[in-house]
Amino acid sequence: MKTSFESDYNNGAHPLVLQHLFETNTQQSQSYGFDEWSESARGKIRTACKCPDADIFFLVGGTQANATVIDGMLATYEGVIAVQTAHINVHESGAVEASGHKVITLPSHNGKMSAEDLEAWLKAFHADPTLEHMVIPGMVYITFPTELGSVYSAVEIENILSVCRKYDLRLFIDGARLGYGLASKECDFDLAWLAKHCDAFYIGGTKVGALCGEAVVFPNGNAPRHFMNIVKRHGALLAKSRLAGVQFDALFTENLYLRIAKHAIEMAMKVRQLFADASIPLRDSSTNQQFVELSNKQMEQLLEHILFETWEPIDEHHTLCRFVTSWATTDEDIKALSKALQTL
Amino acid sequence: MKTSFESDYNNGAHPLVLQHLFETNTQQSQSYGFDEWSESARGKIRTACKCPDADIFFLVGGTQANATVIDGMLATYEGVIAVQTAHINVHESGAVEASGHKVITLPSHNGKMSAEDLEAWLKAFHADPTLEHMVIPGMVYITFPTELGSVYSAVEIENILSVCRKYDLRLFIDGARLGYGLASKECDFDLAWLAKHCDAFYIGGTKVGALCGEAVVFPNGNAPRHFMNIVKRHGALLAKSRLAGVQFDALFTENLYLRIAKHAIEMAMKVRQLFADASIPLRDSSTNQQFVELSNKQMEQLLEHILFETWEPIDEHHTLCRFVTSWATTDEDIKALSKALQTL
Amino acid sequence: MKTSFESDYNNGAHPLVLQHLFETNTQQSQSYGFDEWSESARGKIRTACKCPDADIFFLVGGTQANATVIDGMLATYEGVIAVQTAHINVHESGAVEASGHKVITLPSHNGKMSAEDLEAWLKAFHADPTLEHMVIPGMVYITFPTELGSVYSAVEIENILSVCRKYDLRLFIDGARLGYGLASKECDFDLAWLAKHCDAFYIGGTKVGALCGEAVVFPNGNAPRHFMNIVKRHGALLAKSRLAGVQFDALFTENLYLRIAKHAIEMAMKVRQLFADASIPLRDSSTNQQFVELSNKQMEQLLEHILFETWEPIDEHHTLCRFVTSWATTDEDIKALSKALQTL
Amino acid sequence: MKTSFESDYNNGAHPLVLQHLFETNTQQSQSYGFDEWSESARGKIRTACKCPDADIFFLVGGTQANATVIDGMLATYEGVIAVQTAHINVHESGAVEASGHKVITLPSHNGKMSAEDLEAWLKAFHADPTLEHMVIPGMVYITFPTELGSVYSAVEIENILSVCRKYDLRLFIDGARLGYGLASKECDFDLAWLAKHCDAFYIGGTKVGALCGEAVVFPNGNAPRHFMNIVKRHGALLAKSRLAGVQFDALFTENLYLRIAKHAIEMAMKVRQLFADASIPLRDSSTNQQFVELSNKQMEQLLEHILFETWEPIDEHHTLCRFVTSWATTDEDIKALSKALQTL
Repeated sequence: MKTSFESDYNNGAHPLVLQHLFETNTQQSQSYGFDEWSESARGKIRTACKCPDADIFFLVGGTQANATVIDGMLATYEGVIAVQTAHINVHESGAVEASGHKVITLPSHNGKMSAEDLEAWLKAFHADPTLEHMVIPGMVYITFPTELGSVYSAVEIENILSVCRKYDLRLFIDGARLGYGLASKECDFDLAWLAKHCDAFYIGGTKVGALCGEAVVFPNGNAPRHFMNIVKRHGALLAKSRLAGVQFDALFTENLYLRIAKHAIEMAMKVRQLFADASIPLRDSSTNQQFVELSNKQMEQLLEHILFETWEPIDEHHTLCRFVTSWATTDEDIKALSKALQTL
Repeated sequence: MKTSFESDYNNGAHPLVLQHLFETNTQQSQSYGFDEWSESARGKIRTACKCPDADIFFLVGGTQANATVIDGMLATYEGVIAVQTAHINVHESGAVEASGHKVITLPSHNGKMSAEDLEAWLKAFHADPTLEHMVIPGMVYITFPTELGSVYSAVEIENILSVCRKYDLRLFIDGARLGYGLASKECDFDLAWLAKHCDAFYIGGTKVGALCGEAVVFPNGNAPRHFMNIVKRHGALLAKSRLAGVQFDALFTENLYLRIAKHAIEMAMKVRQLFADASIPLRDSSTNQQFVELSNKQMEQLLEHILFETWEPIDEHHTLCRFVTSWATTDEDIKALSKALQTL
Repeated sequence: MKTSFESDYNNGAHPLVLQHLFETNTQQSQSYGFDEWSESARGKIRTACKCPDADIFFLVGGTQANATVIDGMLATYEGVIAVQTAHINVHESGAVEASGHKVITLPSHNGKMSAEDLEAWLKAFHADPTLEHMVIPGMVYITFPTELGSVYSAVEIENILSVCRKYDLRLFIDGARLGYGLASKECDFDLAWLAKHCDAFYIGGTKVGALCGEAVVFPNGNAPRHFMNIVKRHGALLAKSRLAGVQFDALFTENLYLRIAKHAIEMAMKVRQLFADASIPLRDSSTNQQFVELSNKQMEQLLEHILFETWEPIDEHHTLCRFVTSWATTDEDIKALSKALQTL
Repeated sequence: MKTSFESDYNNGAHPLVLQHLFETNTQQSQSYGFDEWSESARGKIRTACKCPDADIFFLVGGTQANATVIDGMLATYEGVIAVQTAHINVHESGAVEASGHKVITLPSHNGKMSAEDLEAWLKAFHADPTLEHMVIPGMVYITFPTELGSVYSAVEIENILSVCRKYDLRLFIDGARLGYGLASKECDFDLAWLAKHCDAFYIGGTKVGALCGEAVVFPNGNAPRHFMNIVKRHGALLAKSRLAGVQFDALFTENLYLRIAKHAIEMAMKVRQLFADASIPLRDSSTNQQFVELSNKQMEQLLEHILFETWEPIDEHHTLCRFVTSWATTDEDIKALSKALQTL
């Protein structure tokens, strides 16, 4: 079997997560979010976020979490502002629009939104006399880290939040890969800081060691009214909620969530070094996704030994390719990549 | 801890299902439904259904499966016909309407739809000169077994299907508890027969031994065009699809799915016998859900020893209560119930 | 051409309405609701309703008004309670569900909702422990007069409103034929009283002398936030809003609206008398719609001379037929009907 | 009262349209599209389009027509491709998204879509391996003339249509101001040609002489199945359909529709000449909307005498302003503008 750097969801669960599923399996419990492990996990997450009043809901996947939170926090006539490359704009098959909300797009700066772009757009919007014919912006959606592996600084998020407050918009942070952002060497804040600088966010489990599960956090106990009904209406309420609860209980025990992320980042930096050593250009990224500019010939040669994702064509002869690490990436995988690079 | 007959989703996974998750955990795989276990499970289900061309998709939960299939198979202007007590009409927080489709209701006969009611309604509908002002019926939705534990006979399903064919409606069977229906002594058909007598159905995993997962089957390769996009748009596409794939692979190995169901039915019949012995009236049910008419005093006394669900008030002094069995119900549980009944 | 009692929308505009369109045609004006006639009409309606703070919007048609108001006043997860025979439940092609809202149905009592049924349903709903899996009721929808020509008494509406207040539901009254209800001899209240006993209602123009147009009234200035955007989003914002404004300006000048209704009622009572004289049974109705039980033979004979609508079969040999009057019904029409009845 | 060039919907109906409403007012008729004038108008439009099999529906307004046609022609999971400046993307309050469909945007070239941009986007889309996570494009939406007054040439439309055919997309043309496009001197085709080069379009009435009404045309009898129900579901079915029918019957009698458009164009060219004479820069436009670059001082001075719309800021000191003509624009209006320009 080829060594794979295809994604952070091509593997199973971290062994400690799986073990917790195993050791709790025979216990009976409440369902639909009222099981004891969900309750325990909520407590641990509140502590980690330093948000004792946080409302926390465990949903199954990222698209579902995005669609449910956005629909839950917006009025019917409101839209959500995101950058062109945002996951909700490109890779969710229109799940946001399926609930009737427009995704209003701003330019992407290596995956990030700029507070200046945002404010300029809002200023123009509110100066427009035809506002009654337009979609009212109700929320800003950003991803941390972004789809391109970049991370916002604390100042960048503060600036975006400040524009949101000025124009009465909610700020929602998609943390499908949250751990990798927080564990990045570039990141100048922690989980508790993040929780204080948005209106909602989620802690991605699927891509950070779980089999499934995203923990949606409303830091100030500000979950939308009847949010459970909204979750159910989106088909997002797990009957055996223990499945998510047990996994997050494990992930937030002894800092496992961040330990997983740190390991993946360490591996990603080794990947980075290997390409640098081979004089192959890389895009900036301090997280677990590395974007490499391969000639098509290099790409084909590498694919004989290693699995990875082709991201998009750069020009006729070059392709941007993605190499991703996770809890499951080993030193053997790094060696295999190193060896494969030597064949080029 | 009290013995619980609350539900078939208050427990973990059947040990063989969990074991399969364990033994496959370190393997890397494709995602989004293309992993090897999903492929293997699809093969086994096709064999069990004797439908070599079936399209099969693994979704996470029942409400999600219902909403996605119904939305996928209906035109925007079409509605779905169901009985008043149908899960989609009562207990899915409006997930069907969230996609813009009306649930058109017929009377419930112990949870079942009658082909006669259906035909009479359709006849009147098509005779109505204001048809252009109405919701066009596009699908019939039935549950097997029903929410009240009852099962359709082969003839009853044939009759409903025949009305569907006559009026160009699709027939969709919600099989959230499918195993318990097929394992019921009343049931006069098998999985392969069912697959030939509808346009779509799903094999419920969550309530029959899995941690999550429902296998949606389009028996004749008749999945709606771009159904993967529809699944994604509903937030129902698992990134780590192995989670569902591995579990269904286990459930359809050596007939585990039906063995689980048979065990639960056996336990349910023992529950039934205990209440009969105690001269407490029961509703008809040959499946794993038993509905018992307790006086409120009996109910309170029993609840001191045993966990179960209160279903609905019968009159001022009596309550319908539900006792549910599953793979996890043991002879010790039966003994505990027996002992508790003796205290009444 | 046969005399027609088919509907109150098979004619043009009342001559005074048309004349006002004519005499204002060459004036230029603002659009999208800001024209001077819309402003004038709003003033006159506020006076007629004795609601100086009312928010008033002119929409084109009834289904549109219902769908827009219901969607505007409900949260996404809320549904609307109506009787089985309600227009929104039967004859709007699922326009309410198209915005994601469930129509929750109660029994119809000759077209009316009973406050007792409503309270019993709400009581049971709030006692249900699975409330988080259900559609939350947010509004009660009634029609005045009903689709069957019946009218609520002041006490009946007070009782419904009182239940709404108790359970925090909004009350919305569909007044597609409002004039005919207010002009009915049975009616024991007036427009100003009605405006004080609901959260929103509309004054139907299309069926009461206009070519099109319904005046949606939020009596206490309680229009939903950004309601103009909601109207636009529903495709319900007239560019040349003068079309509706001018017509309602005429309808609310010198009491024309009620004068039209009174004329139609007078004619309807003559229709009623004719059938009574012919010993043909009629359903109770004090408004402009009369429902007559004809034998199929009578129906066919009458249809040779007179146009009217067949409503629904009563039994194999009898059909319920509808005869409707309007501003355009004349004494000649009554004579024609009388003559036709003599041929039976 | 100031002379107004604000819009083509700030006036009443063309006198011949109004007269036809007058002379038909006392006749009784069928409703919901089955009246004799709607039928007559459909015949005349079929003749004008040389499409004897065309399906034709009269809707009330433009946003409504767009939302209904787009929703009717798309599958739930499909989106519509339009340029950034398209009316559906900017000025319809999210009416397209309200039905669950994404608006996918391409760059605007003075309001127009380029076939090259379209093909490049589609090529990239179909090369993307994550297609199952994206919105499937189902339709191309263009406006003729565009929101900026520009017109497509026959070759440009042929090229777009050819890309649509290659990628199996439907082509829908928003003709809210269709007459002004066809009457433009730049236009090198006629109505019949247009009808052969798309899958659906509408003939705008509201902005071309009617009080309201848009005629949606499916040239090859290719209306979506149950389109009447779809129209009703969108709240877009006129009860007194005669209102639209009579108006279109007048507009398509003795070529009135095009005569109105030609008059407006003639007036617009005079407006254009006046600004050119005053050495004030204008954007290219051969239709009834003229976009003028005024200094803010000029703008304020002009606004003292003349009403017009400020479109958008050009820079700190200049504003793009819109002057629009219609059937109601007179030589006196032109003189008033001329006089006002002399005061600058």
